[in-house]
Amino acid sequence: MQMNRQRDEVAEDAPHVVIIGGGFAGLAAARRLGDAAQRMPLRVTLVDRNNYHTFQPLIYQAATASLEPHNIGQNLRSELRGRPIDVLYGEVEDIDAEAKRIDLVGGDHLSFDILVLAAGAETASYGIEGVEEHAFNLKWLPDATRLRDHLLQTFERLEADPALASSGEATFVVAGAGPTGVELSGALAELIDRVIRRDHPRLDPDATRVVLVEMDDDVLPPYQAASRQYAHQSLEARGVEVRTGTAIDQVSADEVRFSDGESLSTRTVVWTAGVRPNPLAEALGVELTDAGRVAVEPDLRLADRDDVFVIGDVAGARDEDGEELPQLAPVAIQQGRHAALQVVRTLRSKPTTPFHFQSKGQMATIGRRSAVAELASGTRLEGTIGWLAWLALHLLTLVGFRNRVSVLLNWTYNWFTADRAARLILRPSRATEDPTDRGN
Amino acid sequence: MQMNRQRDEVAEDAPHVVIIGGGFAGLAAARRLGDAAQRMPLRVTLVDRNNYHTFQPLIYQAATASLEPHNIGQNLRSELRGRPIDVLYGEVEDIDAEAKRIDLVGGDHLSFDILVLAAGAETASYGIEGVEEHAFNLKWLPDATRLRDHLLQTFERLEADPALASSGEATFVVAGAGPTGVELSGALAELIDRVIRRDHPRLDPDATRVVLVEMDDDVLPPYQAASRQYAHQSLEARGVEVRTGTAIDQVSADEVRFSDGESLSTRTVVWTAGVRPNPLAEALGVELTDAGRVAVEPDLRLADRDDVFVIGDVAGARDEDGEELPQLAPVAIQQGRHAALQVVRTLRSKPTTPFHFQSKGQMATIGRRSAVAELASGTRLEGTIGWLAWLALHLLTLVGFRNRVSVLLNWTYNWFTADRAARLILRPSRATEDPTDRGN
Repeated sequence: MQMNRQRDEVAEDAPHVVIIGGGFAGLAAARRLGDAAQRMPLRVTLVDRNNYHTFQPLIYQAATASLEPHNIGQNLRSELRGRPIDVLYGEVEDIDAEAKRIDLVGGDHLSFDILVLAAGAETASYGIEGVEEHAFNLKWLPDATRLRDHLLQTFERLEADPALASSGEATFVVAGAGPTGVELSGALAELIDRVIRRDHPRLDPDATRVVLVEMDDDVLPPYQAASRQYAHQSLEARGVEVRTGTAIDQVSADEVRFSDGESLSTRTVVWTAGVRPNPLAEALGVELTDAGRVAVEPDLRLADRDDVFVIGDVAGARDEDGEELPQLAPVAIQQGRHAALQVVRTLRSKPTTPFHFQSKGQMATIGRRSAVAELASGTRLEGTIGWLAWLALHLLTLVGFRNRVSVLLNWTYNWFTADRAARLILRPSRATEDPTDRGN
Repeated sequence: MQMNRQRDEVAEDAPHVVIIGGGFAGLAAARRLGDAAQRMPLRVTLVDRNNYHTFQPLIYQAATASLEPHNIGQNLRSELRGRPIDVLYGEVEDIDAEAKRIDLVGGDHLSFDILVLAAGAETASYGIEGVEEHAFNLKWLPDATRLRDHLLQTFERLEADPALASSGEATFVVAGAGPTGVELSGALAELIDRVIRRDHPRLDPDATRVVLVEMDDDVLPPYQAASRQYAHQSLEARGVEVRTGTAIDQVSADEVRFSDGESLSTRTVVWTAGVRPNPLAEALGVELTDAGRVAVEPDLRLADRDDVFVIGDVAGARDEDGEELPQLAPVAIQQGRHAALQVVRTLRSKPTTPFHFQSKGQMATIGRRSAVAELASGTRLEGTIGWLAWLALHLLTLVGFRNRVSVLLNWTYNWFTADRAARLILRPSRATEDPTDRGN
């Protein structure tokens, strides 16, 4: 560690690169720029409103008590140790690109020479009535613990009074059958079947329903037909009711209404049906794509500016066919690395190069020994082998060595005991909880 | 597991034993009574307002990010698997011993044939001005996460604006130098020295102060003089300011006032200076000891009743010399086992036997390679060997196999990396936090 150039040795007049956001894109950029700062005059600051990176692909496991919340969060200072980077814990309120200034909530400011905007996305309710007030989100760690507490409290209420099942208390609705919705509904069905059935003797597991609702005609819309069919069947084999071709019109405290006129009594709607870019996309005052993402040049910079890069979910980069790249971790990570390289090239007065996404494929898990994986080579895996591939990939890409060991430990424990690692209800006032208060 | 008698095989007319509280005492009683219920007609119900057991001896480690909160909580259903016990998640509002009825918050009732009250203790502020409003507690898991979030946010604020240190932001006051206060202040000093010093380059660790305040003349009052002296010196060697013989008169949002007329600017006062029995002690309508604990007969029953046992911190059992037994985990565990045995003897119409506490000693840790242990044999350990004994005992007695592995993993990681397992600020609205809002 003593080989590293320390922060206080960085000249105050070195160019200052500010990265907004410590998600996959921002963290990848920070790592590369931190490495570069050990070889050239460069000040790097990473700003995030959380003091940790969230490993979003496993957030549904924290929500279903398979993993502890801490397993999928990694402290940013801890992760970036040994690199001369300033980590700033704060929320960005506005960006003035002309003045090269960032305004933080609370009144502080930050100036930059080069900005890397990696502010990510947030849950989008598309203005559907009641979603913001009554549905659970599943994007950040506090969302996961809130949903986990609610689910565990619901099982406790059903144990105390099984008759509640008839009032919709035992009906769990997941909106959106993208990877998060598919993985959550599979995990929820498995939690009920393997854990709750055993530990809640009064609760009738057959009275519980997990309903996955998707506006599109099939689950996992961007996957191949064979994968979609496998996922659909595997979900149903686990007891998940799959309602495709159905939109949600309204969510209230005890009901969800569908576009086909039907409705369902429920006190649990989890909204995984859409994301929108962080509102900071608009702060730049530049052109946005139809999805509201910041339009960028092929090198990931804003048009007509050489000092602002936009990467990850907030960026509307396009592939060779002009299609917007999907909002996935691999895209974000590769863009983070690319942007870091372009920053260095810019500072060295070299021309920038265009970004090309190298897809390695996509995968989603439905439950124990059930997953689909579509590799870039064209190989399709499903069932146990797909599931093992999914496990290995997520263990290897998880951020933080301790988290990898800890997740492996929890998964092993869950597998052998049919228990769940993290079945604690941590919300303080429990017995008096108002079931309609989703804490949102 | 198929050997176990299942809950639904228990005759409805079997005697019903209700245990209130899943702490050390209640859980020990539940384990023994659950075992007994496999051999005799017996219905056992354990009621707790949390769905988990809290391993309170390590709660200060969750507060200082050395352990994840989940490491020291164990789901009660999970822990009691395989035993025919009903676990009821609910808060007891009142007990009617005459009617043999328990009223739960929310309106439900529960009847019992035999009651085992193990409701524990809670933080006592002794009416000192401002303690309830402004001091942090350290008794339950949500207390630990609240304090951890506050500490980590404070370090982030100091990193962003080191000048805040002069306004008391960098002064951390621990009230009470019993084991919890000693262990917390040692852990806090170590967190600052080993972790924060490294990861918060702008924060001046020499401007931070950890102040341990004790009304008594020395730290660890019930320990031998040599142990107290070792602990005192070891704390000071780690930079903790120890103020003994000093009471706290008042706590406000930004100050603490001492009995000697001095005051100290601080935004962090952690109150470990006292506990009082759970208010359910009064619900029984029987004689209480001076400390407010329920006076019990030598067999741990209420006088003149053969159907109510009181154990653990809420019970005022006395030793052979007439002294009230200390409110410690070993007392609670042994009383839980003893009460379970007496319940079985009562049901079998055998006479009860008196409880005798078998002390194995006491121990407290100050930090890395520093602890004091006083064994019942008279042997005193301190320094590294005391610390290793402390580590081994806590690992072995921790509830839940997974927690033991997980804690060992986290401790090993912390030791080798000078990092801390759980440095995540999970409270949702961070940047806008009002520093005077302690969330109590």
